[in-house]
Amino acid sequence: MIAKPLRIVIVGGVAGGASAAAKARRTNEHAEITLFERGPHVSFANCGLPYYVGGDIAEREALLLQTPDSFWRRFAVKVHVFHEVVGIDRAKREVQVRNVQTGEQFRQPYDKLILSPGAGAVVPELPGLPARNVFTVKTVPDSDAILAWLRDAAPTHAIVAGAGFIGLETAEALHRRGLKVTVVELQPQVLPAFDADMAAFVQAQLQRQGIEVMTGHRLVGFVTDLRDGERIVHAAQLDDGTVLPAGVVVMSIGVRPELRLARQAGLEIGATGGIAVDDHQRTSDPDIYAAGDAVEVVNRVTGLKVRLPLAGPAGKQGRVAGANAAGGDLRFAGALGTAIVETMGITAAKTGLSEHEARSAGLDVQVTQTHSLDHAGYYPGASLLHIKLVAERTTHRLLGGQIVGEAGVDKRIDVLATALQARMTVQDLEELDLAYAPQFSSARDPVIMAGFAASNVARDEVRTVTCAALRTEVAAHRPLQLVDVRTAGEFDGGHQLGAVHLPIDELRGRIGELDPTADTVVYCKVGFRGYLAARILSQSGFGQVRNLTGGMLQCDAGDLSPTLSNCERADH
Amino acid sequence: MIAKPLRIVIVGGVAGGASAAAKARRTNEHAEITLFERGPHVSFANCGLPYYVGGDIAEREALLLQTPDSFWRRFAVKVHVFHEVVGIDRAKREVQVRNVQTGEQFRQPYDKLILSPGAGAVVPELPGLPARNVFTVKTVPDSDAILAWLRDAAPTHAIVAGAGFIGLETAEALHRRGLKVTVVELQPQVLPAFDADMAAFVQAQLQRQGIEVMTGHRLVGFVTDLRDGERIVHAAQLDDGTVLPAGVVVMSIGVRPELRLARQAGLEIGATGGIAVDDHQRTSDPDIYAAGDAVEVVNRVTGLKVRLPLAGPAGKQGRVAGANAAGGDLRFAGALGTAIVETMGITAAKTGLSEHEARSAGLDVQVTQTHSLDHAGYYPGASLLHIKLVAERTTHRLLGGQIVGEAGVDKRIDVLATALQARMTVQDLEELDLAYAPQFSSARDPVIMAGFAASNVARDEVRTVTCAALRTEVAAHRPLQLVDVRTAGEFDGGHQLGAVHLPIDELRGRIGELDPTADTVVYCKVGFRGYLAARILSQSGFGQVRNLTGGMLQCDAGDLSPTLSNCERADH
Repeated sequence: MIAKPLRIVIVGGVAGGASAAAKARRTNEHAEITLFERGPHVSFANCGLPYYVGGDIAEREALLLQTPDSFWRRFAVKVHVFHEVVGIDRAKREVQVRNVQTGEQFRQPYDKLILSPGAGAVVPELPGLPARNVFTVKTVPDSDAILAWLRDAAPTHAIVAGAGFIGLETAEALHRRGLKVTVVELQPQVLPAFDADMAAFVQAQLQRQGIEVMTGHRLVGFVTDLRDGERIVHAAQLDDGTVLPAGVVVMSIGVRPELRLARQAGLEIGATGGIAVDDHQRTSDPDIYAAGDAVEVVNRVTGLKVRLPLAGPAGKQGRVAGANAAGGDLRFAGALGTAIVETMGITAAKTGLSEHEARSAGLDVQVTQTHSLDHAGYYPGASLLHIKLVAERTTHRLLGGQIVGEAGVDKRIDVLATALQARMTVQDLEELDLAYAPQFSSARDPVIMAGFAASNVARDEVRTVTCAALRTEVAAHRPLQLVDVRTAGEFDGGHQLGAVHLPIDELRGRIGELDPTADTVVYCKVGFRGYLAARILSQSGFGQVRNLTGGMLQCDAGDLSPTLSNCERADH
Repeated sequence: MIAKPLRIVIVGGVAGGASAAAKARRTNEHAEITLFERGPHVSFANCGLPYYVGGDIAEREALLLQTPDSFWRRFAVKVHVFHEVVGIDRAKREVQVRNVQTGEQFRQPYDKLILSPGAGAVVPELPGLPARNVFTVKTVPDSDAILAWLRDAAPTHAIVAGAGFIGLETAEALHRRGLKVTVVELQPQVLPAFDADMAAFVQAQLQRQGIEVMTGHRLVGFVTDLRDGERIVHAAQLDDGTVLPAGVVVMSIGVRPELRLARQAGLEIGATGGIAVDDHQRTSDPDIYAAGDAVEVVNRVTGLKVRLPLAGPAGKQGRVAGANAAGGDLRFAGALGTAIVETMGITAAKTGLSEHEARSAGLDVQVTQTHSLDHAGYYPGASLLHIKLVAERTTHRLLGGQIVGEAGVDKRIDVLATALQARMTVQDLEELDLAYAPQFSSARDPVIMAGFAASNVARDEVRTVTCAALRTEVAAHRPLQLVDVRTAGEFDGGHQLGAVHLPIDELRGRIGELDPTADTVVYCKVGFRGYLAARILSQSGFGQVRNLTGGMLQCDAGDLSPTLSNCERADH
C-alpha cells in the first residue's frame, strides 16, 4: 500500500518560496508540491534590479532565475504564477486562491503550508501621489516601468527618497543614465543602518561624484500636472519649503511585511511586526511554516528578534521551511544582518551591531577605528579600508563591524561575519591566519590590524577616544592637553583647535614640553603614531593619556576633498 | 633611582625581527633594543620579489620597508645592517657579532635575546653549479641579480626548478619578461601542498598560457661553459635524459631553516627541524626567544608541531616574541598554513589540511567538491570557484579547504580560515551570514554552497564519491551502475566509460530503466543534478546510490580545453 502523498502548498516565490519548494522536493520525492505566486515570475533576482535600471545588467532575461516550466521539469513542483492566495482556512487546511488574470477563485487543500509573502515597498500618502513617474524598485515590472519612463519622457532630474541600500544603488543607476540625482533622506545621515561616522565617508563620496544628498529632510508633497489623463510629477517639495525639479522619483524609504494573510489566519505576529516563527521556521500553527522578508529573525549577536529583509537569510529560511514541511529537520539559527552596498565607487558593509545599536541595547562597548590598505602598499593599486570594530568592553567579544572603502570591503566583512558567528573576541582576530600575497592583502590583513588595535585596548595597553566623543568633550569645555604628533606639513594642513604640535619622532627628546598631570589626548592621521605616542607618554609618568582612534582621517570622514589614497605604515 | 634598562638584542630583521623590535619598544619604552641584520636591509618585502622580477612592482624602493635611520627615529631601536651574529654565549648572556664588511668582531651583552634567523633557499649540489645564471629569489640582491642578467644576457629560455608558490610566481614573472619558461617539479603535480585534483586546475592553466610544466622530473645537472672566467649554464638535464635549453635558471625547491646559531648555543631543535618554542615564542633558554621561518609552529588543526615558512605567522610570532622579551605577555596560538598564490590568471589558496594531509594524519574524512560562480550569474563577469572541503567524518568539523579560481578566491579562503580557527563544523558553514550584492557574491555564497554540499553528506542526505576514488574503483573492476544525468549534448561531449545516459529531467519517468539493486553512481557536470538524482533514486528503492562530488568538471580538472566560464545553477 502506498501512503497518500504529503500535500505542500507554498505561498509566494522569489528567494524564500522558490528555495522552500526545491528543498521540499529534495527532502520528499513523493510529496505533491504546489507554489502560488501573485506576480508574473516564480523567482527573479530582486537584488539585481538597480543594476538593470543602471544598465550594468543589459539583458532582462538574466534577472529571471526560474520559470514554472523549469520548476516542473526539474523539481516536479507545480507553479502557478498570477495566482494570489487570498485566504487560509486552518481548520479545513485549505487555501483560497484567486487567479489575478481571470478573477476565478478556487480552494486548494494542504497538509503543510509555507508562507513566503515578502514585504512591499512603503510609499507614503503624499499630496500629488500616486503619479505616473513615481516608482518603487521591488519587481521586474517596476524596473521595466522606470526604464520605459526614462526612454519615453527623457527626464533630466531624479529624486531618490531614502538613502538606504536600494536608494543609493538606484541613485547611481539613474546617475549612470545621465540624470542629475538628488537623494533625500529623513535621517541626518545616509545609510541609517551604519554609524554616522562611517556613513560620512559614503556621503562625501556621493557628493564628490555629483550626487546631491539632502539628509535631515522629508518629502512633503509633489508638484504635478495632468498629461493624457495621468498625473505627472515635475517637482518635489521638502519640509523646509525647498522645491526640487523632478522628472522621475524613486521611493525607497523602506519595506513593510505582507501580513494580511497571516493576520487573517490568526497566526502570531511578533513584537517586531513580523510573523513569529521558531527555529524550524514554524509559525504558531504547527502545519504552517513561514520564511523571507515577512518573518521575524533572531539576531545572533543579541539573541533578540528583529526584522531583516535581506535575500541571504530569506533563502536560507526557505530552505529550512521547505525541508521541515517535507518531513526533514533543519534549523535556522538566526542572522547577523550582514549587508553590503556599492555606490559611486565606494563600498560600505556591515555585520552585527553598530556602535549606536550596541549602546541602544545597553551594552558597554569599546570602539576602535583603523584605516589600512586593502593590499600591500608596495604592490600597485592599494586603497584604504576604513574599519570600525565594536566589542563588548568586559568580555572583549566582537559585537559588530563596519567597513568602507574602494576595494576588498566584501572580503573583510565576510571574515568579520564569520568571526561574529563564532562569537570570537577581538584577541581572536589578532590570531587569524589569513591568506597573504601582495595583490590580495598585507602580511597583516586589515582585519588583523583592526584586531590588534582593539586588542591593545582590551589589554589596557592604550586607551582611546572616538572623534565623536572628543568633539563632545571639547564642546563641553573639558580641559584637555591635545597633542598632534604628525609632521609639520600635516599639522599646517589642518589640526584640532588648541592642539600642541610635537612630531612623534621628536617626542622622546621634547617630552618635557608637555604636562604629565594633564588629561592628554594624542592624535595623528590614522591612529598609529598616536598609539606610539600614547605608549611613550604613559610609560613616562603621564597619568591620563588617550589616543584618538582612527586619527584625523576619521574626523575628516565627511570631508569632500579627494580621498587619501595612501597612509602611513602602521602595525600596532 | 632608575633601574638599569633591559637590554634586548634581536638577531635578524625582515618580518620576524622587525616586528619584534617595534613591539618590544611599544611594550617597554626604556629598554635598550639592538637589532643585527647580516644583509643590507632591516626589512624588505620578500613576498614582493617575484613581482619586482616580473615588473608589476616597478620601483625597487617600494620593496624596502624600513631603514636603520627610520627605525631609530620612530622606535629608538639601534639597527646594524651588514652585521652577523656568529655566536651566543648563554652563560655570559652575550652575542658575538661580526661586521661582514670590515671583518671586525665584538661582543654585545643582552638580558633577552630574540632570534629571527629565517630560512635560506635550498640549492642542491648538482654538476655545473654554482653558475653565474642560476639564482634563488630570497632577497632584494637576488632579484637585482636576476634582472641584471635578463638585461645583460637577454636569455630566451628559463627553467624554474620547483612548482611551489615562489616557483609559480617566478615562472609568471619570467614569462612576462618574454622568456619561454619550463617549470620542473619532482612531485607528480604542481603545488605539492595541494591535493592533486585541485593542483590539476592550476597545471592546466599554466600549460594553456604557454608555460611548459614537467612534473615528476628531477634536474640532474647543467651543461655549462666558461665566459670571462665565470661558469654559465646554457642547458639543463633531467633525470630521463631530456636536455632543456636554459639561459637562466631559478631554484625554488624549498627553504631550510638557519639553525647554526641555535644549534651552536645548544637550544632545543624540534623533531620537525625547527627551533622549539613555547606559546610565548620562548626557546629552551628562558632568556632567548625565537620567531620566523626557523621556528616550529603549532598547526591549529592537528595540534602538532610543523614548519611553516610564511610571512604572516612570522610577523605575528615576532610581535609576540618582542612583547614577551620586553616584559609583556602575549601568546602565539599557532597557524593554519593559510596560503595563496596567483599565477598566469589563476589563483589557488589553501587553509588547514588537504585531503592527503588529513588521511596521512590518520583522520577519517569526508570530502566534497563544488564549483560555484564567484558572484551572481546575472551580473556580468562571473567566473567559477572550485572548492574542496575536507571535514572529519564523525564530528563534521572542518579540517581544511582548498580553492582555485580566477576571482574571489582570497575572500573565500579567508572565510574558511576564520571558520577553521573557530573549529566550525560544515553545518556552521551553512549558517554563515555573508554579505550579498550581485557584484560581490550570490545570495548563497560559494562557501555557503560548499557548506550545503558538505552538510548534506554529514546529515546522510546523500553519499558521495570523489573522482579519484571512482577511478580507483573502476580500475579495480568494481561492478557499478554509472548514470550520467546530463543533457544529450553534454553526454555526447564526453562521459564516463560505460555510463547509462538518463537526463535528470527525464529520470522520474524513466526510472524503471535502472536497476535498483545495483551499486549506483550518478554524475553530472558540477554535482548538483547528480545530487538531485541521488535524492530521487534513494527515495525510490535504490539501496546503494552515490553522487560524484564535483561532477565531470572535477574529473576534467587537468583538461587543457578552455576553462568553462559558466555552470548550471545549483543550490543544494
